[in-house]
Amino acid sequence: MNHAFTIEELRDLHEFACKLARTAGAYLRNDQIRRRRIALGTEEKLNSVDLVTAADKSVERLIRDSVKDRYPEHSFIGEESYSAGQEKRFLLRDDPTWIVDPVDGTVNMVHMFPMVAISVGFCMNSIPTVGVVFAPFLGGDGTLYSAIHHPEGGAWMAEYGAHGPLTELPLITPPPPLPEDAPKGCLFFGEWGKDRRDSPQSNLSKKATNFVNMATEIGGRGGKGSMVHGIRSLGSSTMDMVFVASGQGDIMFEAGCWEWDVCAAIAILLQTGGIVVDSNPPADLGDNDPIPMANIGGRRYLAIRGCSEDPKGRSSREQQERVVREVWKKTERLNYQRPL
Amino acid sequence: MNHAFTIEELRDLHEFACKLARTAGAYLRNDQIRRRRIALGTEEKLNSVDLVTAADKSVERLIRDSVKDRYPEHSFIGEESYSAGQEKRFLLRDDPTWIVDPVDGTVNMVHMFPMVAISVGFCMNSIPTVGVVFAPFLGGDGTLYSAIHHPEGGAWMAEYGAHGPLTELPLITPPPPLPEDAPKGCLFFGEWGKDRRDSPQSNLSKKATNFVNMATEIGGRGGKGSMVHGIRSLGSSTMDMVFVASGQGDIMFEAGCWEWDVCAAIAILLQTGGIVVDSNPPADLGDNDPIPMANIGGRRYLAIRGCSEDPKGRSSREQQERVVREVWKKTERLNYQRPL
Repeated sequence: MNHAFTIEELRDLHEFACKLARTAGAYLRNDQIRRRRIALGTEEKLNSVDLVTAADKSVERLIRDSVKDRYPEHSFIGEESYSAGQEKRFLLRDDPTWIVDPVDGTVNMVHMFPMVAISVGFCMNSIPTVGVVFAPFLGGDGTLYSAIHHPEGGAWMAEYGAHGPLTELPLITPPPPLPEDAPKGCLFFGEWGKDRRDSPQSNLSKKATNFVNMATEIGGRGGKGSMVHGIRSLGSSTMDMVFVASGQGDIMFEAGCWEWDVCAAIAILLQTGGIVVDSNPPADLGDNDPIPMANIGGRRYLAIRGCSEDPKGRSSREQQERVVREVWKKTERLNYQRPL
Repeated sequence: MNHAFTIEELRDLHEFACKLARTAGAYLRNDQIRRRRIALGTEEKLNSVDLVTAADKSVERLIRDSVKDRYPEHSFIGEESYSAGQEKRFLLRDDPTWIVDPVDGTVNMVHMFPMVAISVGFCMNSIPTVGVVFAPFLGGDGTLYSAIHHPEGGAWMAEYGAHGPLTELPLITPPPPLPEDAPKGCLFFGEWGKDRRDSPQSNLSKKATNFVNMATEIGGRGGKGSMVHGIRSLGSSTMDMVFVASGQGDIMFEAGCWEWDVCAAIAILLQTGGIVVDSNPPADLGDNDPIPMANIGGRRYLAIRGCSEDPKGRSSREQQERVVREVWKKTERLNYQRPL
């Protein structure tokens, strides 16, 4: 079934999502101020993990209730959609569906490190179509990234509060070509993750190998050295993806996160001309086959920023697919999956 | 020779340094807007590395000239102090000395990733005494961290521009104890750096080993697994140190950077009760010897945030030194040094 929305309907929906994310952000900021007061002894003591878990649940409830109220006919997927049972089957269908992460970067939130994001995504026909990512602790007013993925849509960064000026994304428009020998010269984002097992086959070991391959000089590591310009780990896959979407980074390679961590950021990425594919190469993909988009619920994501035709006449897509294949060649397969 | 300043003199100096850092930050923001315009084809094309190098030099000149004008009798150390010759001997003496990095995180600046800092430090008697770190791209107004390291001083975060409200640092006051089994449970900051040689003895290999030891479950890696809560790499050692100083992180372990990258942040760290020591254990240090402060020009830094007495009655210093020794046990020595 094809669910078509007019651009006006999408603009309303985007505005609603931006307000919702800002309301949730204000809640998180107040919650942090409350935590500071607790530390000063004016409220009962709770440990910071409990406090953040409680904030996470409150914000998810707030967002879910607001969406149900405004769009009662839409579906809703959040972490809580899965928390009741063992079933982790991917729930996204073609009907209009909100995919929300109330707090991405909970470890950061516990430690008050500001890379924390509220991620509000909206899909139709299983495609991320509206995305709002609000980082309430990046600057006093927070920083809001958003997009309507549509020919008449757009993508924006708002650093000056709800009524301040907007910056169009990507930050450089049109975006520059990718570096000629990319991933060499790229800013690469990835996370260490929660799988900490000490085994050569663990995701931790493979992620370490991948980081070292990406960092090492060209010619090193048996040809896998890629000499990226820098490796960044922020502790929030939402923020990793958003920086690539906005043109403030080049490559995001991350597995283990879930659709609510990336859905909103993917809408922004798509609107700015970026691509996202599976971080493991599909088994039956030929060298000249077009590379399919990542499954939104597949838990493995390799995103490349938007770019313009390069001096050799390679199209944006050609450059991006070349970089994808280079990264695949130089990284180990990660072991995260999902019944689909 | 002992150089004493009154608290009033230090407050003047702090205010001057804050204004200077904000002026430099406005320059960098304008420069970024100019780069976006160049991309749009309205100015001649230059590559982004050249542009950032030029901005770096302009800002260093601006800061150096302003300091010379206001405090002609003070010494000044910046990257350019060393660029003329091969001599890398550490220049800090006991006289009043400014130590400045016009742009920390130049790779980030090239890619427009917002972890970029202007670092303005002031030492007397070789101790960082006033520190101002301005991150002009963190929020629309930028985020300014600063401190006067003095019994009547203080430490602050300013997220709302030059005239907005200040937040006292550390963010939680008094700061909570360190986690009982720290580094387990800590937020750990470190960088991959620029040494990318493919050799088991390279700093890259050792840094990778250290990251994996820190991340791995307790009991793993032959007892070196430390199960930190998360590892963060921001591409700016100034920002890594500032987040630990402000209580937005717990441990910063980084070698290879220079005094201008950390001097200002160390002033903030010291004022908030944090410590900074050599990231390699001093050769002749006994198990019960007090751990000396890092040499400001030593290029190896292990910083631990301020904390309060813990439930076992361990003092702040006892907890911090215990964590230092644990990190030393679980990390490889890095090969960066400096003729002193």
